[in-house]
Amino acid sequence: MTVSLSTQIGAESQVNGQLAPIRSLLNGFSSHALKSGTLSSPEHTASDEIAVLTLRNLIFDICNQNGGGHGGSAIGMAAIGVALYKYAMRYNPNDPNWFDRDRFVLSNGHCAMFLYALNHLVGYDAWTMDEIKGYGSAKANGFKTMCHAHPEIEDPGVEVTTGPLGQGIANAVGLAIASKNLAARFNKPGYEVSNSRVYCMTGDGCLMEGVALEAISLAGNLGLNNLTLIYDNNQVTCDGPLDWINTEDVNAKMRACGWHVLEIEDGSYDVQTIVRALQLSKASTKPTFINIRTVIGLGTKVAGTFKAHHGTFDEESVALSKKLAGQDPERTHEIPEHALSYFRERKEHGRRLQLDWQARLDAYATEYPELYAELKTIRSGNYGQGWLDILRELGTQQFCGKATREVNGAIVEKMWKAYPGLFGGGADLVNSNKIWYSEDDVFHPSISFKGRYLRYGIREHAMASISNGIAAYNPGSFLPITATFFMFYLYAAPGVRMGALSNLPVIHFATHDSFAEGQNGPTHQPVELDSLYRAMPNLTYIRPCDAEETIGAWMLAVSKRDGPTMLSLARDAVPQVRGTDRAAVAKGAYIIRDEPNAKLVLTSCGTALHYTAAAAQALTDSGIPTRVVSFPSFEHFDKQSDEYKESVFPNDDTPIVSVEEYVATTWGRYVTASVGMNGYGYSASNESNYERFGLNARGIERRVRAYLAQLGGKNARTAGWKNI
Amino acid sequence: MTVSLSTQIGAESQVNGQLAPIRSLLNGFSSHALKSGTLSSPEHTASDEIAVLTLRNLIFDICNQNGGGHGGSAIGMAAIGVALYKYAMRYNPNDPNWFDRDRFVLSNGHCAMFLYALNHLVGYDAWTMDEIKGYGSAKANGFKTMCHAHPEIEDPGVEVTTGPLGQGIANAVGLAIASKNLAARFNKPGYEVSNSRVYCMTGDGCLMEGVALEAISLAGNLGLNNLTLIYDNNQVTCDGPLDWINTEDVNAKMRACGWHVLEIEDGSYDVQTIVRALQLSKASTKPTFINIRTVIGLGTKVAGTFKAHHGTFDEESVALSKKLAGQDPERTHEIPEHALSYFRERKEHGRRLQLDWQARLDAYATEYPELYAELKTIRSGNYGQGWLDILRELGTQQFCGKATREVNGAIVEKMWKAYPGLFGGGADLVNSNKIWYSEDDVFHPSISFKGRYLRYGIREHAMASISNGIAAYNPGSFLPITATFFMFYLYAAPGVRMGALSNLPVIHFATHDSFAEGQNGPTHQPVELDSLYRAMPNLTYIRPCDAEETIGAWMLAVSKRDGPTMLSLARDAVPQVRGTDRAAVAKGAYIIRDEPNAKLVLTSCGTALHYTAAAAQALTDSGIPTRVVSFPSFEHFDKQSDEYKESVFPNDDTPIVSVEEYVATTWGRYVTASVGMNGYGYSASNESNYERFGLNARGIERRVRAYLAQLGGKNARTAGWKNI
Repeated sequence: MTVSLSTQIGAESQVNGQLAPIRSLLNGFSSHALKSGTLSSPEHTASDEIAVLTLRNLIFDICNQNGGGHGGSAIGMAAIGVALYKYAMRYNPNDPNWFDRDRFVLSNGHCAMFLYALNHLVGYDAWTMDEIKGYGSAKANGFKTMCHAHPEIEDPGVEVTTGPLGQGIANAVGLAIASKNLAARFNKPGYEVSNSRVYCMTGDGCLMEGVALEAISLAGNLGLNNLTLIYDNNQVTCDGPLDWINTEDVNAKMRACGWHVLEIEDGSYDVQTIVRALQLSKASTKPTFINIRTVIGLGTKVAGTFKAHHGTFDEESVALSKKLAGQDPERTHEIPEHALSYFRERKEHGRRLQLDWQARLDAYATEYPELYAELKTIRSGNYGQGWLDILRELGTQQFCGKATREVNGAIVEKMWKAYPGLFGGGADLVNSNKIWYSEDDVFHPSISFKGRYLRYGIREHAMASISNGIAAYNPGSFLPITATFFMFYLYAAPGVRMGALSNLPVIHFATHDSFAEGQNGPTHQPVELDSLYRAMPNLTYIRPCDAEETIGAWMLAVSKRDGPTMLSLARDAVPQVRGTDRAAVAKGAYIIRDEPNAKLVLTSCGTALHYTAAAAQALTDSGIPTRVVSFPSFEHFDKQSDEYKESVFPNDDTPIVSVEEYVATTWGRYVTASVGMNGYGYSASNESNYERFGLNARGIERRVRAYLAQLGGKNARTAGWKNI
Repeated sequence: MTVSLSTQIGAESQVNGQLAPIRSLLNGFSSHALKSGTLSSPEHTASDEIAVLTLRNLIFDICNQNGGGHGGSAIGMAAIGVALYKYAMRYNPNDPNWFDRDRFVLSNGHCAMFLYALNHLVGYDAWTMDEIKGYGSAKANGFKTMCHAHPEIEDPGVEVTTGPLGQGIANAVGLAIASKNLAARFNKPGYEVSNSRVYCMTGDGCLMEGVALEAISLAGNLGLNNLTLIYDNNQVTCDGPLDWINTEDVNAKMRACGWHVLEIEDGSYDVQTIVRALQLSKASTKPTFINIRTVIGLGTKVAGTFKAHHGTFDEESVALSKKLAGQDPERTHEIPEHALSYFRERKEHGRRLQLDWQARLDAYATEYPELYAELKTIRSGNYGQGWLDILRELGTQQFCGKATREVNGAIVEKMWKAYPGLFGGGADLVNSNKIWYSEDDVFHPSISFKGRYLRYGIREHAMASISNGIAAYNPGSFLPITATFFMFYLYAAPGVRMGALSNLPVIHFATHDSFAEGQNGPTHQPVELDSLYRAMPNLTYIRPCDAEETIGAWMLAVSKRDGPTMLSLARDAVPQVRGTDRAAVAKGAYIIRDEPNAKLVLTSCGTALHYTAAAAQALTDSGIPTRVVSFPSFEHFDKQSDEYKESVFPNDDTPIVSVEEYVATTWGRYVTASVGMNGYGYSASNESNYERFGLNARGIERRVRAYLAQLGGKNARTAGWKNI
């Protein structure tokens, strides 16, 4: 099929009725000098051009239907979209979760309509035109829609939730790690059962974000040649031209990071050159970065300017674009039959791909029955209950005189075998985190890709976001772990949050969880970070006080399939607390020591519980019978019945005092007073800090007594919460 | 003076009595191929060598005195320390705060003893040997010490608090921006009154952290040629060899980011080559990166290995090192007279430098009296009370129908003139943040360095950490501002925290502060971030509900000189709330509407307050007289007297209900029940989200009524806090 094409770059440069010599026009927008090694372009095929226009026109309609959205980049990326979804990527629209599909990540998630439009065009059943029309308003459907402003993982054809810039690139690195690992462990010559490649789109924004730069550096170190990062190089950001804020030689930077770099001059139309670059990337021994020059809002009056970033597009340009594609400018949300069949052919293509793979897998099952069985287990994510039995039966005697970080390390070692989904490691502090691993089991090109232990380097945010990618690869197959000091989970927080929001299970080992972290000082001493994690929906923050509760925390962490868990672990050795109970951790809070007619309740967790118990003993001995409540998890306690809650914390006039080495904002809803921190920590020994901040047994007792004296027998609840 | 020298690389390669040909030995540890353009070394001068050894020996003593510390890198950096403090840097030990001093940042802050030892050697009065001996224990002094495990800003000779890796580099970029700005505004030919250069040390760790990579990229874009970043390239991290986790070509990467790169082969002894490199960096038109190959724990049994990272050093090596320096191996913490005079000469040198500068400044005062007066004001940070008068008198009529983000933008515009200390900008969302600025006033090499408006690019974490550097340059002179969506302050959180911990005033404009942010969806909708910032010590989080309170928030934010403030601002227009009072924002919470015999108190802030007030009206009209409390700042309320607190929230059986679009963990200490969020947001219109989550007037009323019904007249406080 031959058509006449025209294009415009801005309003003033319209060329009607013919294929435009757009190259020179495009260059006008470029501040990047084109490098040697740039790929040259073959002839356009007419149907590709129609496809690009069709995709672009659908994006116009999506933007204009609700008066906005981030359409400009999506429009500029249309040819890339066609190259990926028509040619390069292996996927099956009939089965969005096909195990061996290539994974696509839209790190510049604000261009969501790019993905939605493609998902519709290639024929994912769920992505009907009615759904597409829901973008931006969805009033008709009670404001429910799959067309979120940013792609969300629960929708078919969306691999990860993206939006906060930079994290998608780290997710893609995680997906590539997972894929690489499975390929190394299971592929055999002639029986390649795991072939997933990861394609990730990025804009200028993601490439400025630290998390992306961390992940890019690690991907280079790991040599993840199954990863292709495609740069929508439109040289424009929300506020203006890119060179206002960034003038790097991005290609040189990527090369320095160990990436293979390809550059494409015309990303607006040149589908086949993009396809060739994508093919070339498959042969690389390194991860590949394809720098594609595009024009934001191409073919509209705001083309090439920041105004194209968000908003609607002018009718005149849209009409012209539709005419060129043979569409009626008066109509919206319609795909001409010939364009639809161009895309929808992918359904049959995908069906065949999956059948071929299935046949290969069946042959593999015969040839390598043991590997097949193992792969089947991994795919199912069903690792049985052996791990739970081990945790249930694990004796605590062996942990005498050990810190909870050490107990945790010992459990990691046991679970590494018992729960083979565990995958990950730490951010260059594992000797302090006490996460032991075998050299042979390291995932690294210098060793092998079969290992499950990852050295993340000093890249906390990337660690968390990469973990989300690993967890998302084939949900249930991998249970990623991360490790660093609790304080540095503030660096990682945006990644932890995205995992929680995306329902991805990851276990974060946050050691050195208070000012008792070995005298590094206030910069390393969390006093407020619990407040974040205890408020973060679907993140289970557990702070066990001893080995018994650490085991209980693990029982919950591995059981949780729909979100991350953070284990808050202490640096220093603690004795086993009398009365703790691994099974009771699931209650969130429980009585570990009671007195008849208790006149006071003290509650605490972590290391502070040890001092609290000692203070309670002193108070009891002096005639104030004191109940002690261990409170490792707010989230679990909140789920208990009112009856249970009242059995732990009586709803009467009894003073209930929390004790923790943190600012006490989070405790106010459970207790009548709190012993906590009122400022930052101090660079001194752990013991001296407990003394300094009035949080050793003597300090707690003193503060509690002063509170009781102040109350003078009045109803503690009516008096209101006190920070004592 | 000529001495015999020896060195050892590890224990096995000792060369006694002669200057060792160490170059080849050092190379043995290097995985970096040495590049062409490497500087060659001149002859060593004996006294430099003694100085290096003396510094190293003092570090040995510091480490060994308390059985640990991060000595290995500090030892490897000794020659760099001598080059900086003996030759390159302009400073005056007699006046640590001399305005025109060069600034030094130890981004690898764990090597703090490097800085402490140098500060002692060059003669900062406060850094006595007794202080040095306090490192690590300080028991004698009630556990008080200046020798924190990481450098802290309150100590003389320490420019910024460092420790969390990467941020020091961003701080240094901030210091360089501040210096550059003052130089551009005030220097005149022959009257250079602002010459501060910024030197920053980094290890391998900082260079992996995203925040550093963001800051490096921005420094390149800004062409900050007054910044020298010195890389202690020891190829070892906490966990092992660097190439386990990082194999970048760091020099190429830095060049790609717009930096001038120098490389030095022998960073262990070659003081004069380092000095020459430092001199060369002063002539660069770009920021300079000096990659210096060092050996961690040089001259000890653990040299070149991760074991040198933390811990003590073997006696044999220490003894040998002391002998070589002419010191008695049996004695510790002693500096030979000839070595001390080598360093202490800097006191006289610094005194002269400062006198010269003072003379130049005096001449400048005569030649440029107006500029001198302006500089004097900036140096003093005393910008008068004009800004406050403006805020006190600012009418709110003009803000009818404006969102608080827009009100804030208008105030920024006014304050930009009235408070000339304001300096900064946003992270590529300023059109949405509504921060307007004049093109002419942009700090950028393409415009000028005189401007005070900074385009940070999409680098939130660096933005916060750079701001801290600007604030720290000459405390009081600059009041940095930052701007992005509230959600992305999670990316920036580690920087915000360091500002709060370091008592540095910065104003953060966090717009789009709830799910009502324009339907970007849960990835952009904070529901738990307030919990972090309301718990963060010394960070004042203020969430005003209207123009009146936004003005009040500004009055507090500019007044605060010892820490940052975050203004939490709404995207959508709101009417002025009846009863709000700018002066009362300082109370934290106050009654905006009362009823005789109120039976219920509703309290809220931000946009939610508008819905709350409407719900209160409906409840009052239906016979439940309801008090409404506006609660913009927890921190300020916490500082009020018990009497005042009780006048707002009665300590009786009255139900007190908080309403906010956040998870309600932070409210429990003030109220008996909370209407809030129980999960993440949703990608839909703001109005529909208030409906969806039961947070519009109807939803609030419904939830409050259900709560009251459940209470059935019982004492609300005794019933315990409820999440309704």
